[in-house]
Amino acid sequence: MTESDLPVVHLTPGRWGDPDHPVELPAAAVEALKHLGVRRPAGSPVDPEYRPGLTTAQLDFLASIVGPDHVTTDLDSRWGHTRGYSTPDLLRHRAGDTTDMPDAVVYPGSHDEVQALLAACCEEKLAVVPYSGGTSVVGGLAADRRFVTVDLRRLDQLVAIDEISRTATLQAGVRGPAAEALLAERGYTLGHFPQSYEGASIGGYAAARSSGQSSAGYGRFDQMVVGLTLATPRGTIELGRAPMSAAGPDLRQLVLGSEGAFGIITSVVVRIRPRPAERHFEGWRFENFEAGLAAIRRLAQDGPLPTVLRLSDEAETAVNLADPDVLGGGSGGVLAIVGFDGPYNAATARALTEAGGQNLGEGPGETWRVGRYRAPYLRDPLLDEGALVETLETAAFWSKLPGLKAAVTEALVKSLTEQGTPPLVLCHVSHVYETGASLYFTVISAQTDDPVAQWRTAKIAANHAIATAGGTISHHHGVGTDHRDAYAEEIGPLAVEALQAVKKVLDPDNIMNPGILLTSS
Amino acid sequence: MTESDLPVVHLTPGRWGDPDHPVELPAAAVEALKHLGVRRPAGSPVDPEYRPGLTTAQLDFLASIVGPDHVTTDLDSRWGHTRGYSTPDLLRHRAGDTTDMPDAVVYPGSHDEVQALLAACCEEKLAVVPYSGGTSVVGGLAADRRFVTVDLRRLDQLVAIDEISRTATLQAGVRGPAAEALLAERGYTLGHFPQSYEGASIGGYAAARSSGQSSAGYGRFDQMVVGLTLATPRGTIELGRAPMSAAGPDLRQLVLGSEGAFGIITSVVVRIRPRPAERHFEGWRFENFEAGLAAIRRLAQDGPLPTVLRLSDEAETAVNLADPDVLGGGSGGVLAIVGFDGPYNAATARALTEAGGQNLGEGPGETWRVGRYRAPYLRDPLLDEGALVETLETAAFWSKLPGLKAAVTEALVKSLTEQGTPPLVLCHVSHVYETGASLYFTVISAQTDDPVAQWRTAKIAANHAIATAGGTISHHHGVGTDHRDAYAEEIGPLAVEALQAVKKVLDPDNIMNPGILLTSS
Repeated sequence: MTESDLPVVHLTPGRWGDPDHPVELPAAAVEALKHLGVRRPAGSPVDPEYRPGLTTAQLDFLASIVGPDHVTTDLDSRWGHTRGYSTPDLLRHRAGDTTDMPDAVVYPGSHDEVQALLAACCEEKLAVVPYSGGTSVVGGLAADRRFVTVDLRRLDQLVAIDEISRTATLQAGVRGPAAEALLAERGYTLGHFPQSYEGASIGGYAAARSSGQSSAGYGRFDQMVVGLTLATPRGTIELGRAPMSAAGPDLRQLVLGSEGAFGIITSVVVRIRPRPAERHFEGWRFENFEAGLAAIRRLAQDGPLPTVLRLSDEAETAVNLADPDVLGGGSGGVLAIVGFDGPYNAATARALTEAGGQNLGEGPGETWRVGRYRAPYLRDPLLDEGALVETLETAAFWSKLPGLKAAVTEALVKSLTEQGTPPLVLCHVSHVYETGASLYFTVISAQTDDPVAQWRTAKIAANHAIATAGGTISHHHGVGTDHRDAYAEEIGPLAVEALQAVKKVLDPDNIMNPGILLTSS
Repeated sequence: MTESDLPVVHLTPGRWGDPDHPVELPAAAVEALKHLGVRRPAGSPVDPEYRPGLTTAQLDFLASIVGPDHVTTDLDSRWGHTRGYSTPDLLRHRAGDTTDMPDAVVYPGSHDEVQALLAACCEEKLAVVPYSGGTSVVGGLAADRRFVTVDLRRLDQLVAIDEISRTATLQAGVRGPAAEALLAERGYTLGHFPQSYEGASIGGYAAARSSGQSSAGYGRFDQMVVGLTLATPRGTIELGRAPMSAAGPDLRQLVLGSEGAFGIITSVVVRIRPRPAERHFEGWRFENFEAGLAAIRRLAQDGPLPTVLRLSDEAETAVNLADPDVLGGGSGGVLAIVGFDGPYNAATARALTEAGGQNLGEGPGETWRVGRYRAPYLRDPLLDEGALVETLETAAFWSKLPGLKAAVTEALVKSLTEQGTPPLVLCHVSHVYETGASLYFTVISAQTDDPVAQWRTAKIAANHAIATAGGTISHHHGVGTDHRDAYAEEIGPLAVEALQAVKKVLDPDNIMNPGILLTSS
């Protein structure tokens, strides 16, 4: 009933998964891909070529700060820190594309070492890419010039727990499972389970405004953070003397989501909660997506909310359910997953029933729970088979969601069909608020000869549809480089200028993640 | 059971109250003041003297934008817009002190007129003080140079309601009661009831990060805002395409709390909720403040939270209760107020009983509800009698609250006793979070010959104690000028520089509320 019964996995560079636990596509899926015109590509992955990095003097300088054991320049290490896990990233990885490869990887052991590293990199005019879990899917690890990657994995401590205030101070390099394990020893949970949970880290959650699968019960990561420490090239900023304050703007919310452009978040103080004694996950069926959307809106607005609440549309329900009988003998409909940390809440179930839902019991709920981090693992074998598969997401107010869903789906279908590769587009809602919700799309089609360009075209069409239909360019993936232009359009030129001005103060030499979030000025 | 059974009042310049509804101190209170050495001051209020303001050309320019009927320069109008309602403000008002008096008051009728006014004021190098409800108690209406006040009262519309998303678009000049009345017509409530409710406005709530008495149930105002429009001297910024987003920092939280330093918030989109059919307010008794604090922490951390939750300490309980028998025949103890919008929640009551609370029934709850906006009205007759009376507030994490309360109390007692005026210091908690809570202090002593300087000395001591004991300089009053130095110390010089840089982008001529929030650079 906890996360600890799931196998421990490790992400591998260029593949979302663990070579020791290969994931194979079901034969039926391989068959289904043929209907999309998917064909296994002829080429094999290309090995990356080594290219020289920093000077010896520069490396000695970095080593003088973190120690020689904590500076690496070998190809494996550098290639393993190249880009993240978007489909274009994986495709470029397979092509052996070494643009975006760091010149060195350094592993500081403390906040002070991070601070000293930033000063050193300023002096040497070296760009810095902060690296926490490395799980960006928006091009968040590809600076616009040569750079040093600062990998925070040695900042892996639970620094303090305040049991009276129910807060914990966690260093940026603590990964999701480690955070839960450290807190579990004291009887607590953070309750943050994004799909990248196995690989992502506290610092990345904070820098990219992460949201987890239990957001209905625990909130987003930015709602869990009550304090943070930011190392900038100009010095350290510490924020958060109280849960909430009227002392000026909430500057924590200016650092959360800054994606390394202002500095490196080295630790955060997060709200923690007692570890639940029990958990329950159920499947619920609704006649169609519209009916399911009305039901989850009712829970979001009038309660009581469960801990996990997600709703697949018809297409995703049909594709993702291994056993179509689960919805009642192939009668169609859509699947919702409802999860409770703690006792089962009968009032939630009553509200869902009143809204037309049919309780499918714990079977589909447990199936989802056990496979909850597995979906991204399917992407690698799908790419192996020659499919293009990628996800994107947005959020909007409830009244705009139906139009937004239709517009994004239409844009993706139109763009990919025009390219000769008609896609399958699946959608679900996985984060709800009183005033709106997120939409998460999965797109599958055959690859063209240039799948990177193919997806770029489709993505631009989707971004345009999101903007036109009134959605935000990202609900939980972040901006990176992939959404930078759309983000600038979303907040407008004056707000961009304001952010650039903040960056200029904290990072006057523009060494911090240049080109991520904001264009380099 | 709603706010509509309370008398409608209007704030008067220089007095918190309505001349038609004068508040008199109970005879027992007047008697009690003698024990503090309070003596009725000899002098009478001084009338302000007229001094010339803008040139005719400047006034014509402003009138060309808003119309001649919407520019005023008479003494009454200017004096009525001079400062806010802190005790030093009231004392200076009584002294006829016309520093901080605006040179003109303009009343724009639309966002576009606000935008045009800011452009005009840039051109004429006129400073601008935005004026919404005028209820600042932190010197938020006293620019550091001569200025024009932009009074937003004509922006009084409920622009739109989105019933599916449960959001309302309200203009900045809508006052608290008007907002509730407009929403009530459609069956909704905002649920925001700060003590300044009768006078304060939507724009001020937003600009100063207001928090209301029902914050346990409805959240703070900054948690209600999902979108906003800001007019800056450089142009308009519109924020909020979704309830939450991972597209960069949450810039709404950079504008909320900016106190007019970046521009004028002309409208906000807020979350609304169905108007409750019933309300319940109860008094609860705890043995002492410590026991009460443990009980409300339990509700804040483990639930279920009521809508209103506040706890007075021993001193405040003793002073504020008209009838000491309410706590059980003068046996001491402390009073908590617990309020529910909607059905009474027996689970909350059970948790309070388990935590040692004794239910005093609806009597003390209703007494509090009916008098909930009345406390500030007592200040004027207290000042008339020669008492110094002022409030200040802070917030911190739960583990720091006892030390913070002791430190602030000690600092105030020490400072005022050293000045020959030993005070009474009362305290309550009125806003709770999972990780911490607010502390609100009321201070009463005799006045010295220079009560403004007397309070300044005490306030500096309190600010120092807050910083040392780990609290934030304001939980819901804001920064203004009174907290500006303490605020700069709280966030540190780098963060101040970042805010200054944002201001420089949006307000390059430093016309917006100069000296408020940030020192003029």
